[in-house]
Amino acid sequence: MDGMSTKNGSTLPFDAGRLDRIMDETGIDVLLVTSKHNVQYLLGGHRSFFFDYMDAIGTSRYLPVLVYPKGRPEDAAYIGSAMEGFEKALGRFWPPTVQTASWGSEDALKLACEHVGRIISPRDTIGIEMAFLPYDAGRVLHDAMGNRRVLDATFALERLRLIKTPEEMKLLRQASDAVIASIGAVFDASQPGMTKNDLVAHLRNEEVSRGLNFEYCLITSGTELNRAPSDRRIEPGDILSLDSGGNYRGYIGDLCRMGIVGEPDAELSDLLDFIEDVQMAARRPIRPGTLGGEIFALAEPLIEASGHKAYTEFVAHGMGLVSHEGPRLTGKGVVPYEGYDEDRPLEAGMVLSIETTMKHPVRGYVKIEDTVVVTADGWEGLGDSRRGWNRVGR
Amino acid sequence: MDGMSTKNGSTLPFDAGRLDRIMDETGIDVLLVTSKHNVQYLLGGHRSFFFDYMDAIGTSRYLPVLVYPKGRPEDAAYIGSAMEGFEKALGRFWPPTVQTASWGSEDALKLACEHVGRIISPRDTIGIEMAFLPYDAGRVLHDAMGNRRVLDATFALERLRLIKTPEEMKLLRQASDAVIASIGAVFDASQPGMTKNDLVAHLRNEEVSRGLNFEYCLITSGTELNRAPSDRRIEPGDILSLDSGGNYRGYIGDLCRMGIVGEPDAELSDLLDFIEDVQMAARRPIRPGTLGGEIFALAEPLIEASGHKAYTEFVAHGMGLVSHEGPRLTGKGVVPYEGYDEDRPLEAGMVLSIETTMKHPVRGYVKIEDTVVVTADGWEGLGDSRRGWNRVGR
Repeated sequence: MDGMSTKNGSTLPFDAGRLDRIMDETGIDVLLVTSKHNVQYLLGGHRSFFFDYMDAIGTSRYLPVLVYPKGRPEDAAYIGSAMEGFEKALGRFWPPTVQTASWGSEDALKLACEHVGRIISPRDTIGIEMAFLPYDAGRVLHDAMGNRRVLDATFALERLRLIKTPEEMKLLRQASDAVIASIGAVFDASQPGMTKNDLVAHLRNEEVSRGLNFEYCLITSGTELNRAPSDRRIEPGDILSLDSGGNYRGYIGDLCRMGIVGEPDAELSDLLDFIEDVQMAARRPIRPGTLGGEIFALAEPLIEASGHKAYTEFVAHGMGLVSHEGPRLTGKGVVPYEGYDEDRPLEAGMVLSIETTMKHPVRGYVKIEDTVVVTADGWEGLGDSRRGWNRVGR
Repeated sequence: MDGMSTKNGSTLPFDAGRLDRIMDETGIDVLLVTSKHNVQYLLGGHRSFFFDYMDAIGTSRYLPVLVYPKGRPEDAAYIGSAMEGFEKALGRFWPPTVQTASWGSEDALKLACEHVGRIISPRDTIGIEMAFLPYDAGRVLHDAMGNRRVLDATFALERLRLIKTPEEMKLLRQASDAVIASIGAVFDASQPGMTKNDLVAHLRNEEVSRGLNFEYCLITSGTELNRAPSDRRIEPGDILSLDSGGNYRGYIGDLCRMGIVGEPDAELSDLLDFIEDVQMAARRPIRPGTLGGEIFALAEPLIEASGHKAYTEFVAHGMGLVSHEGPRLTGKGVVPYEGYDEDRPLEAGMVLSIETTMKHPVRGYVKIEDTVVVTADGWEGLGDSRRGWNRVGR
């Protein structure tokens, strides 16, 4: 990550001024950050190589803890696992206090609370990530902090990550390009008789060979709408959707492209052209200053006016270290804060995932998902190739 | 997984009689299982393909919940993510009640508590995994269950997994063989000038191409003792240790082998021979009925009597879905329950990780880690090849 200067002259790998403002607005004095993605963000890219995939160890789990008191990075601390001593020895952590000594969630929180006890003021509040602090660690926190006010810092930390730096943008571009190249390679090499599991195994290899961590592949073939990998075999004439997420150093590429075994007929061509039209209509208003909700203003009427309304969905959401994060563009979601940015302006450096999905009752699953960056004067698509009907097996 | 019959005649993918006994001994009436590994175990191998790697989504996280009331699998339930509806449609879940509707930790626990409320008796206790239930989900549980007694079920669930089935053994064998083949391929292909990061990237590709999820690689080169991947370059004469974990369908292969750029001198040959002797001495007593502590009885005196005591460690621990699990053989560990099986007999179907590690102050890091299965009449090593000095680059 790019280093950014703080008021006291030290260089931090994130915008500490922005974090301090957000903490001020949220009423949080001391942050206890425990999710892998937010710890990575605040540590400038560090993610324990040993616990990247797994959490469980012994009868407990890995729990990294970053302590950050508002406006005082000099009092910050990182409590890592004993396995992160190797990374400490390589000088990879900026906080002045680093302890790589924990083996589980309770001892990690005990060490963190000892540090917090040394730096906190009597009336300070504590911000935690409610979904990423384990139950037993929460009990340690309560035992140590008594009746002190504990607030949820999850949304505040998401707002901190809202505008991507040029360095983050590079990683997102690399992830998107690698996912699309991998999807293309799978379409090119697949043959009737292979199973959906075969294609997913191939896609995993392609993504990993390009330096990604493979996360998942949603896949349909033929007229089915079930997107789980399975032993269903690809047949001549099948349409295929490949919707895969893979991350490059934590930053997610998440795109969907279509393939066909043979040639698309006129109806299939029309369906994908329609989806392309919706996707491109959604991009048109994107530039700094446009309100988040306007992305829907051109796309949704197209769907309304088409004959495809009953089985077509349009969604757009932010993405980055998390597959659904800010900006929160639509009010239609099922998660808290969805729609928060509907009436707020887009800013350069935001990254959007835009998806038009057709669950066609006769022809099957047809979808394009794109990643679109808000630039200084408009937008730019990442991994923007392979958008039409990819011929499978050639 | 092999199906096992319960007293009521239905077929479950785990030994329900054993689970009921353990719950009885632990005083747990209703289990709320929320870790990926234990949910996988109780669901007979299911692990959400969408959330295999990532947890975070939106402002919350994926949280699978399996509800199991002692002795009543007919009242069990699985609360999955909305993304697991595809797997539900494919009939992959045995519990009679399956809801794939959650998007986060709080709504998952709300659905689970509604089910628990319908099946629980007034004085029943609840068992949870303290390190795998998020703070916000724990609050939902408390709000729903009032003053009901909540116990930690983590160790009970570990005891359930203690004896591996033939099907689990196949997966562990496949994982171990693939890790060793991958380590061997990396030694064969590496050259001076490459970095430790290069070797780890290669190892990742090799493991993934063999169907594993790559988890990590601890790596040293030359005389260093720092095991983190880095840009340090391999040089002529370097010794290399590659200690990698990768899982096949969740089951872990975790082994360490040594390489050298060139030929080992007499001292290096002696050091690795000594480690081999300790590793083989540790295996000798392994058979059903041997007390767990006896594994140390032959290995440790060898180290004591050698000139290497000051920088050589010997450890042995169970492994399976978790890299350190039961049997818990040594009392020397830093985690709870370590040493629990020191005075308990080994049983056929247990799987042990055995490691002898030398942090040699002059020559560097020399280690062998093996996976050893307790069989009906002794032991068997998994992935037992490539044990000597592997020549790098040929």
